[in-house]
Amino acid sequence: MADLDATLAEILGPRGWLSGSEADSYRRDWLDRYGAEPLGVARPASTDEVSRLLAACRVAGAAVVPQGGNTGLCGASVCGRAGGVILSLARMTAIGDVDGAGGSVEVEAGVVLDRLHQTLGSSGLIFPMHLGAEGSAQIGGLIGTNAGGSHAARYGMMQDLVLGLEVVLADGSVWNGLRGVQKDNAGYQLRRLFCGAEGTLGIVTKAVLRLHPAPKGRATALLCLASADALVAFGARLRSEAGEFVNGLEFFCDLGLDLVLKNLDGIDFPLESRAPFYLLVELTASSAKVPLDEILEEVLTAGMEEGLVTDGALAQSEAQRLAFWRLREEQPEGQRLEGTQLKHDISVPPGKLARFIAEAAPLCEAILPGVRLNPFGHLGDGNVHYNLSPAAGAPDFAGHGQRFAVELGRLASELGGSFAAEHGLGRAKIALANALRGAVERDLMGRIKAAIDPAGILNPGVIVDPVLARQNVS
Amino acid sequence: MADLDATLAEILGPRGWLSGSEADSYRRDWLDRYGAEPLGVARPASTDEVSRLLAACRVAGAAVVPQGGNTGLCGASVCGRAGGVILSLARMTAIGDVDGAGGSVEVEAGVVLDRLHQTLGSSGLIFPMHLGAEGSAQIGGLIGTNAGGSHAARYGMMQDLVLGLEVVLADGSVWNGLRGVQKDNAGYQLRRLFCGAEGTLGIVTKAVLRLHPAPKGRATALLCLASADALVAFGARLRSEAGEFVNGLEFFCDLGLDLVLKNLDGIDFPLESRAPFYLLVELTASSAKVPLDEILEEVLTAGMEEGLVTDGALAQSEAQRLAFWRLREEQPEGQRLEGTQLKHDISVPPGKLARFIAEAAPLCEAILPGVRLNPFGHLGDGNVHYNLSPAAGAPDFAGHGQRFAVELGRLASELGGSFAAEHGLGRAKIALANALRGAVERDLMGRIKAAIDPAGILNPGVIVDPVLARQNVS
Repeated sequence: MADLDATLAEILGPRGWLSGSEADSYRRDWLDRYGAEPLGVARPASTDEVSRLLAACRVAGAAVVPQGGNTGLCGASVCGRAGGVILSLARMTAIGDVDGAGGSVEVEAGVVLDRLHQTLGSSGLIFPMHLGAEGSAQIGGLIGTNAGGSHAARYGMMQDLVLGLEVVLADGSVWNGLRGVQKDNAGYQLRRLFCGAEGTLGIVTKAVLRLHPAPKGRATALLCLASADALVAFGARLRSEAGEFVNGLEFFCDLGLDLVLKNLDGIDFPLESRAPFYLLVELTASSAKVPLDEILEEVLTAGMEEGLVTDGALAQSEAQRLAFWRLREEQPEGQRLEGTQLKHDISVPPGKLARFIAEAAPLCEAILPGVRLNPFGHLGDGNVHYNLSPAAGAPDFAGHGQRFAVELGRLASELGGSFAAEHGLGRAKIALANALRGAVERDLMGRIKAAIDPAGILNPGVIVDPVLARQNVS
Repeated sequence: MADLDATLAEILGPRGWLSGSEADSYRRDWLDRYGAEPLGVARPASTDEVSRLLAACRVAGAAVVPQGGNTGLCGASVCGRAGGVILSLARMTAIGDVDGAGGSVEVEAGVVLDRLHQTLGSSGLIFPMHLGAEGSAQIGGLIGTNAGGSHAARYGMMQDLVLGLEVVLADGSVWNGLRGVQKDNAGYQLRRLFCGAEGTLGIVTKAVLRLHPAPKGRATALLCLASADALVAFGARLRSEAGEFVNGLEFFCDLGLDLVLKNLDGIDFPLESRAPFYLLVELTASSAKVPLDEILEEVLTAGMEEGLVTDGALAQSEAQRLAFWRLREEQPEGQRLEGTQLKHDISVPPGKLARFIAEAAPLCEAILPGVRLNPFGHLGDGNVHYNLSPAAGAPDFAGHGQRFAVELGRLASELGGSFAAEHGLGRAKIALANALRGAVERDLMGRIKAAIDPAGILNPGVIVDPVLARQNVS
């Protein structure tokens, strides 16, 4: 490994190769659950350097672990075993010219999402990916994890926003798939396969991203919903009456509101009444001629007449709109500040969300009486972050963490959903995948991994169980 | 093979196994360019029968070639060599209950697209895939070819409309990925990989499809455009001012109009003037409160003031709307009736469509002076069917077919596009892929094929060059 250290120092230069204490800040994942000591941190400045780095690591048999903004929640961006190379593309931050007529832009993988939003600024185009971590999440990491976020029901996940990719493969060869078209059926959909592969099949160095027209009108409301059933029924009605305008359809529950109001400063709840669930509705349109307020008010009125919506307010200013969003966006932080927690990233078909919530509650109560349930998330795509806090006064979950994960994941699966909706598998959910997905599916993934990274140097231990990976190589 | 014949007859029963002359109507592809003599045609009635069939074929080493409606243009649905088994799922035609609140439906692969449209009828939901062949194209074939069609810019291609899949693999094992959620990041995006794999990785037997809200308002216009540049500029303006409403943005050229008017009966051209290009614009909205006519008229007026649009009409009735669409939809038929032709399925970034058209013309003229150029297609996603007829009076293309394909494909590639936009590779474009795509890309595809179908029995000779496939197995 001393040889590899010297080789990488030579390939990457002093700014591009950090070892010893310089590497410390890269070592652990965001939740501080994973991360063995790396050999060092590579910070290449070009695709060519990535290519040479990978070729050297392959010869040395060293693991390569790509790390974007290190905001992932499943431990995919740090080393599973000591001696791997953490690969940061934070120096590859070019943003190409915006293709206004075509609606695309080419970016390097190290671009931080928020900077892309700012760069597009007044171009008339947006990149419609928004999530809590956008101030540090990088394009490469967003692609690697196939990020979802709050607007996925309308605009899709990262795989739907990636037109083309450049990827460096395990042997250092470079796949140039930097095309800028939606329609490209010249063989297997490689660009889709690399999205969500969490760096286990190749290192994404550049991407051509699809842009959408910037909105010219907006209407935002915060609502009280009578129940989870009401949430689902009202969501379906909104989708039917305002389908293409639904930019956000975000829900949280009364416990979540309590935790935010209790644990964060400077947050007010603007409605007069409380309710089991709250829904943030945001409509946007690319034409200023669309009467969004009127459309929203009509659906609201119908929802109130049917008893689904019990209270609500339309944002009367940009400040109020941001305040509404903050109530939703601070849900994770409100709960984090409450103390130890369990996070579950579940999806179910949107029409079955109420059933999931109804059946998950007694399931959790049976495992650990009094456990506090805090479901919130994205109603449009059925993605619920079904997070738990211990019973009031209890210090922790009494060792039941994995049981909660398995039983909630199984319930989601039975309803046609997923136990890993938008956060990925990483290292954290391999055991869950082994428990909840069939052998045929896991074998397919193992075959793909073994075919594209036969030496198993790319982010080993992530997505594919290492035991399975070895079986498929032999 | 006599053994296999008997085995399949036993597995599938008399209605499920056709051989001899009964198989004749399945043998050749739609354009009658491909198709060796099959051993027979399998028409299984269940996933279990598909599974047993594949296991038997694998033991016998027989090729299995899935065939949907047999409307593909690249020869993927017929045998490359004699003795293969054509697999039709035309007896698997169940359509499950529509999940109205969630917006999805489970269907079997043999369902004809048009029947799905009819079944959804007045449900308030649509499956937004429309193409010329919808009266015979089956869901399985649409998934296998990752079909695009006229609404792809808005709603996506098949891979964007497939939430879950059931796939029978080469060894007869069944992957149950019949989930109904958009967000499922539990590992590699297998559902996306099987879309567009043209039956070379597995046999799709069932799918959960995403549905969208049915439109409640519509505005349709037929326009004269001053040039290809005007087409691009006007398309960008429409996208900016009416982005989420653009349901169709279909163009054709003056030669194409000539051919339709000359070769088909009962078609009138409703505008007073002619132009280099025509554009069919259709806006739809899920809310009846959107003033679509007004939005469209405002963009039209601006386009006329800028000299982009030289004439046009808004459809005043459903009959007129259908007449506008027919002018676009009959473009392939108008040219087919003219005699021999060359079809090219190109995509370029939408903003570069004018440049492609400007540069393709002299390129074609240099290959064969007088050749008639008939570009038409989907402006929203840059997909141009750049089809050719021989020079007036000339019988054919004087042996230059492949040269046209390579040079037009190369030009599209240089502009960031694809030589195989929505029709796929099949058998017809393997040589083109070898000429136009890099070794790394082709090797990646070969590795995936070898990993998932190591014996190479699934549609051999399609997508992956058989020589490459053999290299990756060894």
